[in-house]
Amino acid sequence: MSRSLPHPTRDQIELPMVLDCLGDPTRLGIVCTIAKADQAATQLRCGDFNAFSGKSNLAYHFAKLREAGLIQTRVVGTTRYMRLRRNDLDARFPGLIDTILKSAALDADRLQFPECELPGVE
Amino acid sequence: MSRSLPHPTRDQIELPMVLDCLGDPTRLGIVCTIAKADQAATQLRCGDFNAFSGKSNLAYHFAKLREAGLIQTRVVGTTRYMRLRRNDLDARFPGLIDTILKSAALDADRLQFPECELPGVE
Repeated sequence: MSRSLPHPTRDQIELPMVLDCLGDPTRLGIVCTIAKADQAATQLRCGDFNAFSGKSNLAYHFAKLREAGLIQTRVVGTTRYMRLRRNDLDARFPGLIDTILKSAALDADRLQFPECELPGVE
Repeated sequence: MSRSLPHPTRDQIELPMVLDCLGDPTRLGIVCTIAKADQAATQLRCGDFNAFSGKSNLAYHFAKLREAGLIQTRVVGTTRYMRLRRNDLDARFPGLIDTILKSAALDADRLQFPECELPGVE
């Protein structure tokens, strides 16, 4: 069974909320990891992020990311699948998400995001 | 008399802090206004931002911006002059500050930053 959670429409995505959301290192790391998985056409589940934080903390971070319009969450049974809303973000703020992802990649050494075991992702 | 406040070095500027700092609409508005004034080679003082917030709130926001490495603050007597640390930000995160400023400009209608009377700035 698949059910849907509330997501902001493209037009409802707000710049301060996006920046505020990514100002948290854990959420920034989650988004970088989802972006990497999207490029490899791999869809990640909530359980793939256990290295980032505890389960209830993760649920909070995923909700914040969804409410800011950064990720699309699909619920299938007890599993949640996440993908980056890249088209919507690019349409609202051209180049923004890519520039932030590149900045995070430049600082990978000091940000030290946990390594996830992502099937099909190097 | 001019005295100096503590500023992070270029290398100490951290991506999450920059994003978190700009996730606040008032601070985002202040940075957009300072960037506009810098382009017009006009240096703004704390008093130029009275339309943005109350005096003690502004002092808090300016401190946050300075501590995140977004602005350079120069104290002369009871006046503080602010400029964007564009070179440092561009060196640490190429293109980031410009992309954020452009995104904010695209959303000017909904962000509704107060208009400041900036000498020499259109």
